[in-house]
Amino acid sequence: MAPLTPRLVVPVDVKKQPWEQKVPLHNRWHPDIPPVADVTEGELFRVEMVDWTGGQVRDDNSADDIKFLDLTITHYLSGPLRIVDSEGVPALPGDLLAVEICNLGPLPGDEWGYTAIFERENGGGFLTDHFPNARKAIWYFEGIYAYSPQIPGVRFPGLTHPGIVGTAPSVDLLNIWNEREKRLAETNPQSLKLCEIQEGTAEWHKMASEAARTIPGRENGGNCDIKNLSRGSKVYLPVFVEGANLSTGDMHFSQGDGEVSFCGAIEMSGFLELKCEIIRGGMKEYLTPVGPTPLHVNPIFEIGPVEPSFSEWLVFEGISVDESGKQHFLDASVAYKRAVLNAIEYLSRFGYSKEQVYLLLSCCPCEGRISGIVDSPNAVATLAIPTAIFDQDIKPKHSRGRPGPKLIRLPDLLSCSNSGQLSVTQDQSGTRAS
Amino acid sequence: MAPLTPRLVVPVDVKKQPWEQKVPLHNRWHPDIPPVADVTEGELFRVEMVDWTGGQVRDDNSADDIKFLDLTITHYLSGPLRIVDSEGVPALPGDLLAVEICNLGPLPGDEWGYTAIFERENGGGFLTDHFPNARKAIWYFEGIYAYSPQIPGVRFPGLTHPGIVGTAPSVDLLNIWNEREKRLAETNPQSLKLCEIQEGTAEWHKMASEAARTIPGRENGGNCDIKNLSRGSKVYLPVFVEGANLSTGDMHFSQGDGEVSFCGAIEMSGFLELKCEIIRGGMKEYLTPVGPTPLHVNPIFEIGPVEPSFSEWLVFEGISVDESGKQHFLDASVAYKRAVLNAIEYLSRFGYSKEQVYLLLSCCPCEGRISGIVDSPNAVATLAIPTAIFDQDIKPKHSRGRPGPKLIRLPDLLSCSNSGQLSVTQDQSGTRAS
Amino acid sequence: MAPLTPRLVVPVDVKKQPWEQKVPLHNRWHPDIPPVADVTEGELFRVEMVDWTGGQVRDDNSADDIKFLDLTITHYLSGPLRIVDSEGVPALPGDLLAVEICNLGPLPGDEWGYTAIFERENGGGFLTDHFPNARKAIWYFEGIYAYSPQIPGVRFPGLTHPGIVGTAPSVDLLNIWNEREKRLAETNPQSLKLCEIQEGTAEWHKMASEAARTIPGRENGGNCDIKNLSRGSKVYLPVFVEGANLSTGDMHFSQGDGEVSFCGAIEMSGFLELKCEIIRGGMKEYLTPVGPTPLHVNPIFEIGPVEPSFSEWLVFEGISVDESGKQHFLDASVAYKRAVLNAIEYLSRFGYSKEQVYLLLSCCPCEGRISGIVDSPNAVATLAIPTAIFDQDIKPKHSRGRPGPKLIRLPDLLSCSNSGQLSVTQDQSGTRAS
Amino acid sequence: MAPLTPRLVVPVDVKKQPWEQKVPLHNRWHPDIPPVADVTEGELFRVEMVDWTGGQVRDDNSADDIKFLDLTITHYLSGPLRIVDSEGVPALPGDLLAVEICNLGPLPGDEWGYTAIFERENGGGFLTDHFPNARKAIWYFEGIYAYSPQIPGVRFPGLTHPGIVGTAPSVDLLNIWNEREKRLAETNPQSLKLCEIQEGTAEWHKMASEAARTIPGRENGGNCDIKNLSRGSKVYLPVFVEGANLSTGDMHFSQGDGEVSFCGAIEMSGFLELKCEIIRGGMKEYLTPVGPTPLHVNPIFEIGPVEPSFSEWLVFEGISVDESGKQHFLDASVAYKRAVLNAIEYLSRFGYSKEQVYLLLSCCPCEGRISGIVDSPNAVATLAIPTAIFDQDIKPKHSRGRPGPKLIRLPDLLSCSNSGQLSVTQDQSGTRAS
Repeated sequence: MAPLTPRLVVPVDVKKQPWEQKVPLHNRWHPDIPPVADVTEGELFRVEMVDWTGGQVRDDNSADDIKFLDLTITHYLSGPLRIVDSEGVPALPGDLLAVEICNLGPLPGDEWGYTAIFERENGGGFLTDHFPNARKAIWYFEGIYAYSPQIPGVRFPGLTHPGIVGTAPSVDLLNIWNEREKRLAETNPQSLKLCEIQEGTAEWHKMASEAARTIPGRENGGNCDIKNLSRGSKVYLPVFVEGANLSTGDMHFSQGDGEVSFCGAIEMSGFLELKCEIIRGGMKEYLTPVGPTPLHVNPIFEIGPVEPSFSEWLVFEGISVDESGKQHFLDASVAYKRAVLNAIEYLSRFGYSKEQVYLLLSCCPCEGRISGIVDSPNAVATLAIPTAIFDQDIKPKHSRGRPGPKLIRLPDLLSCSNSGQLSVTQDQSGTRAS
Repeated sequence: MAPLTPRLVVPVDVKKQPWEQKVPLHNRWHPDIPPVADVTEGELFRVEMVDWTGGQVRDDNSADDIKFLDLTITHYLSGPLRIVDSEGVPALPGDLLAVEICNLGPLPGDEWGYTAIFERENGGGFLTDHFPNARKAIWYFEGIYAYSPQIPGVRFPGLTHPGIVGTAPSVDLLNIWNEREKRLAETNPQSLKLCEIQEGTAEWHKMASEAARTIPGRENGGNCDIKNLSRGSKVYLPVFVEGANLSTGDMHFSQGDGEVSFCGAIEMSGFLELKCEIIRGGMKEYLTPVGPTPLHVNPIFEIGPVEPSFSEWLVFEGISVDESGKQHFLDASVAYKRAVLNAIEYLSRFGYSKEQVYLLLSCCPCEGRISGIVDSPNAVATLAIPTAIFDQDIKPKHSRGRPGPKLIRLPDLLSCSNSGQLSVTQDQSGTRAS
Repeated sequence: MAPLTPRLVVPVDVKKQPWEQKVPLHNRWHPDIPPVADVTEGELFRVEMVDWTGGQVRDDNSADDIKFLDLTITHYLSGPLRIVDSEGVPALPGDLLAVEICNLGPLPGDEWGYTAIFERENGGGFLTDHFPNARKAIWYFEGIYAYSPQIPGVRFPGLTHPGIVGTAPSVDLLNIWNEREKRLAETNPQSLKLCEIQEGTAEWHKMASEAARTIPGRENGGNCDIKNLSRGSKVYLPVFVEGANLSTGDMHFSQGDGEVSFCGAIEMSGFLELKCEIIRGGMKEYLTPVGPTPLHVNPIFEIGPVEPSFSEWLVFEGISVDESGKQHFLDASVAYKRAVLNAIEYLSRFGYSKEQVYLLLSCCPCEGRISGIVDSPNAVATLAIPTAIFDQDIKPKHSRGRPGPKLIRLPDLLSCSNSGQLSVTQDQSGTRAS
Repeated sequence: MAPLTPRLVVPVDVKKQPWEQKVPLHNRWHPDIPPVADVTEGELFRVEMVDWTGGQVRDDNSADDIKFLDLTITHYLSGPLRIVDSEGVPALPGDLLAVEICNLGPLPGDEWGYTAIFERENGGGFLTDHFPNARKAIWYFEGIYAYSPQIPGVRFPGLTHPGIVGTAPSVDLLNIWNEREKRLAETNPQSLKLCEIQEGTAEWHKMASEAARTIPGRENGGNCDIKNLSRGSKVYLPVFVEGANLSTGDMHFSQGDGEVSFCGAIEMSGFLELKCEIIRGGMKEYLTPVGPTPLHVNPIFEIGPVEPSFSEWLVFEGISVDESGKQHFLDASVAYKRAVLNAIEYLSRFGYSKEQVYLLLSCCPCEGRISGIVDSPNAVATLAIPTAIFDQDIKPKHSRGRPGPKLIRLPDLLSCSNSGQLSVTQDQSGTRAS
C-alpha cells in the first residue's frame, strides 16, 4: 500500500514571522544556502509557504500596509530541497529537474488574499505614472472562486500557481547575474531598487553581499510569474548545483498575464504538492544556451488539460505609440501598456474606478499576447479578458432600448489613512526588529 | 425567403495583377480613396482578396521570388466599402463599426500558401540577425489542415484570419501618423523602410505622397495580425470618415503570435464573409483615447467559441537578457525574442533545421504571452506550442530505453538558386512594368 | 507541386432529382451496387450530396411538404467509391478503412437547411405522442452560423457532419441484417415502416428485394448520426467487400445528440472533402466482434480539437419513469425522453412554443448523456444545452428586481395549409413519377 | 472582514463506523429524518462524508471485501441540512434550492479510493453477465491525479463530484416512489434487490418501513451520478419539505458516464464546500412536471468552465443489437451496452485484461452519449474516451514498421482469496454488530 498523504517537508505557521519558522526560509538565490530537506524522485511531497510579503499585509480597511511595505524583506521562499534519485544519488549539474504540480491551494484557515497598487516611491508598477498612490483590495475565497468587496460584480475561479519556482544558481551563474545587473544599474539606477538592501537575519549574513535578489525571473526559473503554471502542469528546470536545491514561493490565487500592478496577483500563503523527476544529462539534451555561456538557458514548461477554460473573450489592442503620442519602434512593452490602458478606459465605463480595473487586470485570468512584432514600426499587443467573470454584459452594443452600462458608483478600493502613517511605520519596524 | 448566398462585393482573379482587377484594389490608407461598393448593415457579403504580395510568390522550388520580392507593391487591400444603415444613412465619424467574420477561407482553386524568411536587406524579420537569408516553405491545404513538404512531420488546422482589417483614417488621423513616424525615422531610418516608395498606378497618384503605408497596425485597425480574428469573431472599428470605408486584406491560413519571420503567416489569397453593424456614437460610448487627441484609440475584438482548442502545450520562456548576455530593463520584445530562440534551439533537436523551426513558429497556432512585465529588470515572455501538431512526442523525457528524438535529416526549406538572381529580378520588374 | 484542389468524384446538381444526377446515387445498402469512381489512398477528394429527402422539402411557408413527404425515396447516398492503395490494390474484406473528414459544408449557392416534425402517421419521431403534427423550420446560414425565422432569438455555429457514412455490406452481413430485422418486425410491425417499400428506379431493381434500408446505423456505419463527426475527425470503417464501396450522405449543418424529432438535424445538401487510408488487416487487429459472428463489429471514430467549444451548459435530467408515472427498469431511452421533455417544458417558459423547443433540441449542439445506467431501477440521462446559443439569459434566477423571462409571443413554426393536402400529394407523386 | 474558512457543519471520522459519527448520518430518504444543522443562504459551509460503503472496503490485496459487501448498509449520507434565508425563514415547498459546489475533494489523510466489480449475486452491474466475479482496483491520488497499481499505464485528473445530492421527499412524493417501485417489483423482483433490507440503527427504525432506498436517482436528485457535477457547477433542486433538508454523499474522485461496473466510480470519503441560494417559488417558475402529479419534476444542473478539458477522443459506437445478435427496437441501454463492450474488446488489445478495461471505463472521464434515438430500429450510443489518459498511443494505425500495441502481460485486478470467505464474512458482520 502506498502512503496516502504527501509528506510535508516545509511546514509554515502564518502566525509567525518568516524568520521565525521552524524550517528556515530564505529570500535570496545562492548556491550555499543549505537544503532544508531531501526529497526522492517520484515521491509526492508538500511544501507550504508564506505570502510574498511574509505577512506584512493585513485583512483590514486601509492601504497603509501597502504604502509602507518593507520591500527589503519580501519573497521568502520555502526550501531549498535537495532532490535525489531512488538510489540516493542527487540531481547533478547538467541534469534537468522535472517538477510536476499535482495540487496546490491556499493554506487551510488562511483562505484570503490581496492585490495592491504600490506607491510610486515604494515599488511602483507597470502603470505607476498613471496610478501613483497605494491602493488595496482584499479577496475572499469560496472554494475555487475569489471575490472582493472592493471590486464588486466580479467573481472568478483561480488559476492558482506559484509565482516563484527555481533551482539554486551555481557560483558562475550568480556571477553572470550580478555582473549584468550591475551594468544595467550604471545607466538605470532605478532598475534594481527593489529589495536592494537585505539586512536579513544573522544566519544568511555571510552570503548577503553576493546573493541574488528574488524579484526577477532568471535562468534558474525564479519569479517567472507564469499564470498557467497551475495544477497538472510541469516545469523542467536546469540543475546548476548538486541536489538541484529547489525553492518555491510567492503563491498566487490568480494572476493576469503581466501582473501589471506589480503586487498584482491575488497574493496569499499556500501549499504545493509536488513530484520531481531527474532527467539525467537533460540540460545538454534539451536546453541549448542562447547567449555567450553554457549557462544562458531558460526552463521549459508543460501545460495540461486541467484548468478553467473560457469560451468568450473581449480583446483590447495596443500599438507601440505611447500615451504622449510618441512612436516607438516595435516595442512590445509600450504596446502592451497601451492595450492595458485601453482596457482600463473601457471597463471604467461600467461603473468601476480606473484603479479598480487596473487591479482587476492584474489578477483576473486575462491573457496578454504579443500579436505582432514585425510590422514596423508598430508592435501590436493584445489583452484578452474572459467576459464570464463579470455579472453584467460588458460587450459593446446598441444603446437603443437596452439598458446602458452600470453608472451607479460602486464601492472603491482601500486607500491610505491620513494620519496613520508614522505609527504604522514604527509598528512595522518594531515588529520586524523583534 | 432570405437570399441564400452572400453578395459578392469584391471579386478577385488571382491570375491577374492586383492593379488589373475588375474592382480596383489599393495599398495605402487615405480618406480620399473612393469606395468600391456600398454595404448595408445586417447584410451578409463576400470580399475576395489577393495574397499580400499580389501574386509575386510562386508555388515552385526556389526562394528567389522571396529574395527579390518588390516590397513597394505589397498589401493590396480589397475595398473600401461604404457601410450604410437600413435607411441608407452611412456610418459617421464617431460611430463604431462592428464587423462579424461569419466565414472565411482560401479562394476555391487556389488552396495553397507560403511562409518565408526575408533577406536581411529586403524585409528582414524578428530574428533577421540570426537568419539573414531568404527561405521559403510551401503549404498545401487538405480542407482545414495545412502541411508543407519543406517542414515535414507537422500538420495543423488553420486558425484562418485576415491580417488586415481597417477603416479609412480621417485627414487629421493621417497627419498624426505621418508626423509621428517621421519623427521616428529621424532617429531610426530603417524603421519605415518597408514599402517606403509606392510608385503605384496612375489613379492613386494624387494621394501617394500623403497616404499611409499598410505595414503597421494603427488606430484604424490595419495590419493588426491578430491570429484569433477568425470565424465567429467580431471587430469593433472606430469610424473616422463618412461611410467608414472598410478595407480588408492579407489573408492568413494560420499564424503564430508575433508572426516572427515577418512573411511569417501562411500567406494566401482568400475570401471573407462579413456582416456589419453600426453602433451610433459608439466611439464616444466605448472608446476613450489614450493619448493627446481624441483620435488615439484602438479597435476592440471579440472572440467566440469557434476555433481549434488544444489541451497540451509546451512552453518556452525568455527573459529580457539578449543573446550577447546584456541585461535590458523590462523589455518584452527582447524577452520574446529569447523565448523564440529558446524554442528554435529546442525543436531543432528533433530533426529540424533552425530555419524550419523559425518558419514553423511564425505560422503554426502558437501563443506568445507577456507573462511578467514588472519584475525588474526582467520582463518574462513565453511562447506556447501545441504538442498535437507534431507527429512525434516533443516533450522532454528520460532517454532510458526510449527512442531519442529523430536525428535523421529531414528535407529542408527552399533556398535561392545560385545563378538565377539577375534573371529573376529582370523577370520580376518586367512583369511589374507591364 | 501538389494538386491544389480536391478531385470532385461525385458532383450533384440540386436542381435535378436524385435519380437524374449525372453520377447515379443510391438509397439502399447492397454489395452489388457498382462503384461510381475509384479513389486512391492519400488522395484528397470531394463528394457532393443531395439533402436526405432528395429535394422534397422547400424553402417556403408551409409544412405540407413535410406532412406528405415520400419516405420511400429518402436517403440518397453518394457513392459507392472503390478505394485502392497507391499500387492499385483495392481495400479488401478484413481491412479497416480510415476516412478523414478534411472539410465539409453546404453546397455553394444552396446555403440553407430545414428541420421538421413529422406527422405521427408519416415518420413520427422520439416524441411523436406529444407532437403528432407536421411542423417545419427553415434555417439560413451566415457562414458558420445558422438562424431560423421560425425559432427567433437563437443563433449557433454548426457542428456540421454527414449523418451517413458507411461501407457496403457483404452478402453474409446483409443476410444477418435482414434476418434480425424480420424477427423484430414479427413483434413490432411499426419498427421497419420507414422506407419499407422502395419502388426505385429500374437500374437498382434487381437488388431491391434484398437490399437494406438506409435508416438505421449498423455494423457498416450507416446512419449513425454522430453529431461530432465533423471537420478534423476520422472514421475507421470495417471493410466487407473488395474496394470497401464507401458511401456518404444525409448532410447535417448541425444536430443535437439523439436527433430527437427524427427529421431533426438541420438537413441540407452539401459537400465532403475526404482522405482515405487502408489499414491492412485492421479489422482483425482492432475490431473484435461482440455477437455470434465475426461480422458483429462497429466502426470506431476519432475526434480532434477542431470544433466549437462552449464553456457554460444548462443540464436537464431524466429518469426511467415515463410520463404516466410508470417505473421502467434501467431504460436509458425512457430516461432520455424525460430529460428532453423536461428541457422542453423549461425552455417553453422563455417565450417559445413547445414545438419550437422540440425542434431546437433536435438540431442545436446539445449533448445527450447516459449519466447512470446501474442504479436500479432508474437509468439517469441528461441533456446539456450550451447557454451561449440564446440571446437571453436562460438560467434560473431570483425574480426579485430582475426582468423575468420573455413572455411576448414569438413567431412560431411553419404548419400545414388547411386545403393544400391533396394537391400537394398529387404534385409530389406526379413529380416523382416523371 | 469575512470569515475566511467555510463552516464545518458535518464532520466525519473515517476511523469510525457510519452509525458512530458525532453528527448522525442516514441512508434512506424520508421527510421525518431530522436536520442535523441549519445553514443560511449565501453562507459557505463544509460537509464531510464517508465513502458509499461506510468504510467496508479496504486498501488491501483482496477483493473479498467486495465479494461479501453488505449492501443493506450502504450510501450513508451527510445531512439533512435545513436551509434558511438571511432572515431565518426556511426554504419552503415550491421553492428551488440552488446549491453551488465551490470546492470538493478527498478527506485529508484519506487520499485513496477504489473501484470494483460486484459479484453477480451481490450487486452485479451493467455487464454482470460478462463479468460475474468480484474484482477490485485501488486508486491512489497525487493531488488532482489518480493512478492504480492494478490498472497500470493510466493516470488522469479527477472530475470529482458527489454521486448523491438531494432534498428530502414529501410524504406524497415518497408514496409515489414506493408505489411505482412496488409495481415494478411485481414483474421484476430483481430490480429492487439492492439495499432491500435496512435493519439500521435504532434511531431511524420508525421510518424504516416507508423510507426510500438511496440507490436510484429520483425527483429529489438523489443518486444521479452525473460526473460533471464538479467544482464550479450548480444544482437547482426542488424543495418538497420545509427547510429543504439537503443531504449529500457518495463522493467520487472520478466517474465515467454510466458508472458501468456499478461500484464503478473511484469511490472515496470526501468533503464538499457548498453555498446555497433559495429561489422563492422557483419550482412553479422553472420546473414543469412531466407526469401525472405536480411532483413529477427533476433537478436542473449548471456546468461552468472549470474542469479538465480533453481535445482528442477515441469513440466507440454501439447499436441496439445485443450480444446474441438479437435486434431491439430503439433501445439506448442495449446500444450503450454494446458500445461499452466494443470499447472493452478494443482496449484489451493493448495489454489489459477485459476486467481492467471494464473498471477503467467505469471510472475514467469517458463520455457516454445517445447519438441517435430515432433511426428505427437501431438506437446508436457512443462512448468517447480521452486518449491522453493512456501512456501509449491507443489509436488504430498501420502496423508497418511501427511497434504494435503492448502485448506484455500487465498486473491485473485484485481478485478474491480462495479460503478467506467465511472468515471475512464473520469478521464483517462482527464489525457491523458492534
